[in-house]
Amino acid sequence: MPETHISLAHGNGGRFMRELIRDLFSRALGNPLLDTQADAAHIPIPSDAIVLMTTDGFTVQPLEFPGGNIGSLAIHGTVNDLAVSGADPWYITVSAIIEEGLAWATLERLVAAMAEASQAAGVVVVAGDTKVVPRGNGGGVYFTTTGIGLRPACVTLGLERVSAGDVLLVSGPIGDHGAAVLLARESFGLRGSLQSDAASVLPLTRAVRELSGLRWMRDPTRGGLATVAHELAEASRLTVRLQERDVPVRGSVRSLCEMLGYDPLYLACEGRVVAVVAPDQADEARRRWVAAGAVDAAIIGTLTSGRARCIIETRLGGERLLEELEDDPLPRIC
Amino acid sequence: MPETHISLAHGNGGRFMRELIRDLFSRALGNPLLDTQADAAHIPIPSDAIVLMTTDGFTVQPLEFPGGNIGSLAIHGTVNDLAVSGADPWYITVSAIIEEGLAWATLERLVAAMAEASQAAGVVVVAGDTKVVPRGNGGGVYFTTTGIGLRPACVTLGLERVSAGDVLLVSGPIGDHGAAVLLARESFGLRGSLQSDAASVLPLTRAVRELSGLRWMRDPTRGGLATVAHELAEASRLTVRLQERDVPVRGSVRSLCEMLGYDPLYLACEGRVVAVVAPDQADEARRRWVAAGAVDAAIIGTLTSGRARCIIETRLGGERLLEELEDDPLPRIC
Repeated sequence: MPETHISLAHGNGGRFMRELIRDLFSRALGNPLLDTQADAAHIPIPSDAIVLMTTDGFTVQPLEFPGGNIGSLAIHGTVNDLAVSGADPWYITVSAIIEEGLAWATLERLVAAMAEASQAAGVVVVAGDTKVVPRGNGGGVYFTTTGIGLRPACVTLGLERVSAGDVLLVSGPIGDHGAAVLLARESFGLRGSLQSDAASVLPLTRAVRELSGLRWMRDPTRGGLATVAHELAEASRLTVRLQERDVPVRGSVRSLCEMLGYDPLYLACEGRVVAVVAPDQADEARRRWVAAGAVDAAIIGTLTSGRARCIIETRLGGERLLEELEDDPLPRIC
Repeated sequence: MPETHISLAHGNGGRFMRELIRDLFSRALGNPLLDTQADAAHIPIPSDAIVLMTTDGFTVQPLEFPGGNIGSLAIHGTVNDLAVSGADPWYITVSAIIEEGLAWATLERLVAAMAEASQAAGVVVVAGDTKVVPRGNGGGVYFTTTGIGLRPACVTLGLERVSAGDVLLVSGPIGDHGAAVLLARESFGLRGSLQSDAASVLPLTRAVRELSGLRWMRDPTRGGLATVAHELAEASRLTVRLQERDVPVRGSVRSLCEMLGYDPLYLACEGRVVAVVAPDQADEARRRWVAAGAVDAAIIGTLTSGRARCIIETRLGGERLLEELEDDPLPRIC
């Protein structure tokens, strides 16, 4: 009889676990490098490569939302951490902590999305692990992905290259992911076309990473654009000055935020890039992003000498200090 | 005011998360390669290295047990997967999914154990991630670790090298981890000196990995020795024949199993190695393990041609088929 739901026995190392791995994970993610009989995978690395490594856990609720699911997000999140570091993703591992009772069909959809996202990003799943926790000890499923990427030698990025006068860009409207997950989670009776922006940002980072004036990139996930701006100010000891009128926000996201009291600057994105660029190359960087399909890419601010802080110049001509995020507006957003 | 418990805000990307990472994780695990401001860590890899990668999730309950905790286990588990593949562990990443309400002091103990275990194994923590899930959506904390190891070129291991006539060894008494966690979890009113065997097996794998007659190694974790024997039979298409009287089991583990109806052959170990060795080098392999401190190391069986199955010859002179594990005797053992 085919299984319909995950049971504790699917995590015990025995027959059921073997079948779960064979019939679900390997069927979707299988490739010549993924040997489910081995304790560790051999990952060929070219000589003299600059190798980067990153890891990320994913606990988003609900598991499926407009524009993606926790499976695609788990691939995109780690791919994007490598991408904004200037690297190409090569290898990825997937650890799944599954709650007893999760529908087999749901898990199949999540893993199918994972397979599609990894193929699109050109990253190979080389190892995995599955655990099952008793009902009431998990949120359906949590994934952790760990990625290995190779950075071309000509790409040099780093916070130490950021200096006063540099310009800040964002590749598209902010807060789409946060707003889409919020809508999918709560029963506001709201309907709309709002979709998560969850996607690989590789086409965007590849388009600009060899610009000599590119200083630093980051994807504004948890805590949103405001949190990236804070990290940047803190690390560079400069003032980040944003122009509210230039920061792209969709009308639907803005309306939702006004209705519920959120600030889009703190809402998570999962498919955007924030970049710091030398002033004379800011227009070129924006032009490359637009050419790569990021039609709403915008120059949104500058770095100036002064105290390490973030200021936003409002539409009305005033300015306010952008505080560091304290309370959590939206737990389990990624 | 210092925090006493983890709150949702510790996972939001803002100030509390920054403080959690700085005051707890970085303080214990910090090293020159761990840059908490970067999206990805640069991991130097020597040219022409044979690079292995593995990942493992940890959900053991209770979080602390005699002989270890989920923090040390999360390091040992991944170190051991690399070790039995013949590699030295070089780099490791840690993803923590923390349940709201976990005591700060508990998390500090777990991360301290993690730091101690990684230092002992010579592995460097290069990246991490923390998420917080609402109360009731986790088991205190789950960790996923991902390891990168380098295998010396002279080490050649593989299931394809296993052949009929080869001999099976185990490095010490089986089932200690499963029994210790079981005792720590349930209130049987039992007291004893039973400790988990959780430890790095690197000294054991290094002692034998350059033996020309060494074919294959594995650490018998979930599902225990019986499950490793099954995987070996299945993959090699040979009969694995174990001698019950030669398999080392502590008296206290045997008593507990008899009392509660468990079979020690299926109980998890977290610091043992099973090895397949050419018959003429089995004594040498055992001698090396004893010299490395594994005083109870034993030759426990042989591989013979015939159907892919596992047979155990009992103390009484009979034999029985060792079935593949189906029901889960002990969920969340690792």
